[in-house]
Amino acid sequence: MSETRLDDQHAAHLEGLEHAYARLLEAHGYEGVLLYSGAPRHFFGDDQQASFATFAHFLHWVPLAGIEHSWLLIRPGQRPLLRFHAPVDFWHLTPSLPQAAWTRRFTLEASDETAPPPFPQGRLAIVGDVDAGTAERLGAALNPLALCQALDELRVRKSAYEIACLREANRLALAGHEAARGAFDAGAAELDIQLAYLKASRQRESQVPYQNIVGLNEHAGVLHYQHYDIQPAVRRHSLLLDAGRRVAGYASDITRTWAGRDADPQFAALIEGVERFQQRLIAELRPGVDYVALHAQMHLELGRLLSEQALIECSPEAAVESGITRAFCPHGLGHSLGLQVHDVAGRRDARGEPLPAPERDPALRLTRPLEAGMVITMEPGLYIIPMLLEPLRDQPAGRHIDWPGVTRLAPHGGIRIEDDIAIGHGGPINLTRDNATDSL
Amino acid sequence: MSETRLDDQHAAHLEGLEHAYARLLEAHGYEGVLLYSGAPRHFFGDDQQASFATFAHFLHWVPLAGIEHSWLLIRPGQRPLLRFHAPVDFWHLTPSLPQAAWTRRFTLEASDETAPPPFPQGRLAIVGDVDAGTAERLGAALNPLALCQALDELRVRKSAYEIACLREANRLALAGHEAARGAFDAGAAELDIQLAYLKASRQRESQVPYQNIVGLNEHAGVLHYQHYDIQPAVRRHSLLLDAGRRVAGYASDITRTWAGRDADPQFAALIEGVERFQQRLIAELRPGVDYVALHAQMHLELGRLLSEQALIECSPEAAVESGITRAFCPHGLGHSLGLQVHDVAGRRDARGEPLPAPERDPALRLTRPLEAGMVITMEPGLYIIPMLLEPLRDQPAGRHIDWPGVTRLAPHGGIRIEDDIAIGHGGPINLTRDNATDSL
Repeated sequence: MSETRLDDQHAAHLEGLEHAYARLLEAHGYEGVLLYSGAPRHFFGDDQQASFATFAHFLHWVPLAGIEHSWLLIRPGQRPLLRFHAPVDFWHLTPSLPQAAWTRRFTLEASDETAPPPFPQGRLAIVGDVDAGTAERLGAALNPLALCQALDELRVRKSAYEIACLREANRLALAGHEAARGAFDAGAAELDIQLAYLKASRQRESQVPYQNIVGLNEHAGVLHYQHYDIQPAVRRHSLLLDAGRRVAGYASDITRTWAGRDADPQFAALIEGVERFQQRLIAELRPGVDYVALHAQMHLELGRLLSEQALIECSPEAAVESGITRAFCPHGLGHSLGLQVHDVAGRRDARGEPLPAPERDPALRLTRPLEAGMVITMEPGLYIIPMLLEPLRDQPAGRHIDWPGVTRLAPHGGIRIEDDIAIGHGGPINLTRDNATDSL
Repeated sequence: MSETRLDDQHAAHLEGLEHAYARLLEAHGYEGVLLYSGAPRHFFGDDQQASFATFAHFLHWVPLAGIEHSWLLIRPGQRPLLRFHAPVDFWHLTPSLPQAAWTRRFTLEASDETAPPPFPQGRLAIVGDVDAGTAERLGAALNPLALCQALDELRVRKSAYEIACLREANRLALAGHEAARGAFDAGAAELDIQLAYLKASRQRESQVPYQNIVGLNEHAGVLHYQHYDIQPAVRRHSLLLDAGRRVAGYASDITRTWAGRDADPQFAALIEGVERFQQRLIAELRPGVDYVALHAQMHLELGRLLSEQALIECSPEAAVESGITRAFCPHGLGHSLGLQVHDVAGRRDARGEPLPAPERDPALRLTRPLEAGMVITMEPGLYIIPMLLEPLRDQPAGRHIDWPGVTRLAPHGGIRIEDDIAIGHGGPINLTRDNATDSL
């Protein structure tokens, strides 16, 4: 996309935010809201800092992921005031005031202080990681629940600008996936696959939107596997890579699974099977679709695949009913995606009312009907998780499972295939696979 | 070093800690102290976690950097109780109870809860990142100042085990430095130099003891330069790399500076000069040496080098007196090193009394006389920092500075050479350069 078109989209995004915030502030009875970027924390009893992510409501306006100690004051009918922290300091590289096109919609103020800007008379809300004392001194309401829920809701449907950022975040992450696959094929350890991913996607570990999952063999079956082995694996059955990238704060979230040199021949067929039904489920996406029903459909698809591959001997329906499919895939079909990898308000309706996960699917993060402009992940899986499968051995359902097949596949860990999808008026727009820059 | 010898050293280290804690608890009137490992924090309003460093007083006993949600109860005359957090969870790889030799000195208890172990009657102190409510429920004193200062003081002098860990942390970091230098010579961007460093030193970014400084050209003059450019530099004047590694929690902290293809010939001579006087200063290290006086001697050495290299036209003594050397090097000569990169109690004496930095050297982190067993860094520098040098132009001292030379060197940023030194009874033991496993 051309720089100019993105700038225009960004301007339209900001104009939309200005109107929406004005409406919400009036509805909730505030003359203004002060958003705080947040700042890194020190480790306890240490002078070193933990990694940091700028507060997402702040990034909704200001496309500077990593900005810290800064404030944004929004007042209806007035130009947003960005108080940008730029300390005069020879210890660090002092950030300079940004000069991009979007800054023309803001009043920019560089400050070497970390204090909030003064606020003229009126009812003020503060939203962000701010202590109660600061809010009290300003006479402001700190993170008022109803307003915060309304701001969350505002992030559910993405603007054309946001979708362009998410698309670019996918493009860069895919370059990483390709390099990681090459490292895997060359016999690299998990750490080296991760570093190859970071190198090709041009980012450092502390900038990723979520900690990449780089699971070799059995580790592919640990859903949020959190380590990177420094030793290469002796045998190479599989690699599951779940890894993203941020662009202007917006996160991609992509998973691929590859069969390795030592894979069982059936494993590649299972990967293909998961990918095929993932694409069938994606084709169903459009405004009005019930995501909970789609999650149920995923279980039926998974049951069909297990049956086709003779890993079970009952009907797909019976496999779903008896809990077999949930033992092979205990997580949700997907989640909302945006400035956070598990984006806000996935379990609330448009009025902020809770929409809890179904009892059988406590891990499902998205329970609302789909609307145009939402961006979601679609990530079905199939895993050999002993902690979940073993208890079935002693149950009636266990009679339908091909236990030697399970044992044969266990060293592969599991499979997940995940794409990022924008909900267009006419159907799905696959931000991971389609390079077109179509609008909604 | 053989595994067995390290195990023996570790056992002696733990025995020493048992005696020292028993003595301190009695002196401060406690029947026990509960140390908390700490746990990662979530980013504000997000379900993703920031990077985490286990609390150093906990690591002083338990060599598992990264351990979280775990407790250690120390009671005089009783075996230390380690309540090790091992949740039953298919989302993450559940840690298993360690089986190394050191565990024989502990009572190990795996727990899927995060609550502290019960404490029988008696006066208890809690030390770590614990909330006041938890301490109150246990009737315990939370982070009592006098006890905490005494525990800090206990970390100032290292055991043979600790020095062996620090030596190994140096060895691994040096492999990273070598790879980084190769990447620099090949024209890599800062990000790629950093990734080459991590790969060769076998660690991920969230495990480093401090964020590595990878400064190309002018960035070498930003003392705590905090970014990694993703674009290679067009011209290659210099690389300053300040990067370490943890081993069992213990940190190395090494800086090297290299002249690049486009360096001014004088730059290499300056690097050599800084390294030579760094080695002369290291040779002075022994018990009883006044580190503040050694810092003053660094300024005299720097003045001599500037004079030899005709960057100043006054005597070294005059350059120190007039503040010229402090404009070329505004930081301290070094700091204490251990489980934290800027280790505790550097500005306190053995009784916990404050020893503030000299007025002219506010950044000096180590002000106490040296003792056998201390491990410190020695890191003199020479930088072209416009923010510090430019104000001298209009002052009398400025007449003695070779301004064309300063302008010529400015694109190189600066130089720092840093080694980690153990203070032996007979003199310095350079953990960065000497491979021997000599005792103190």
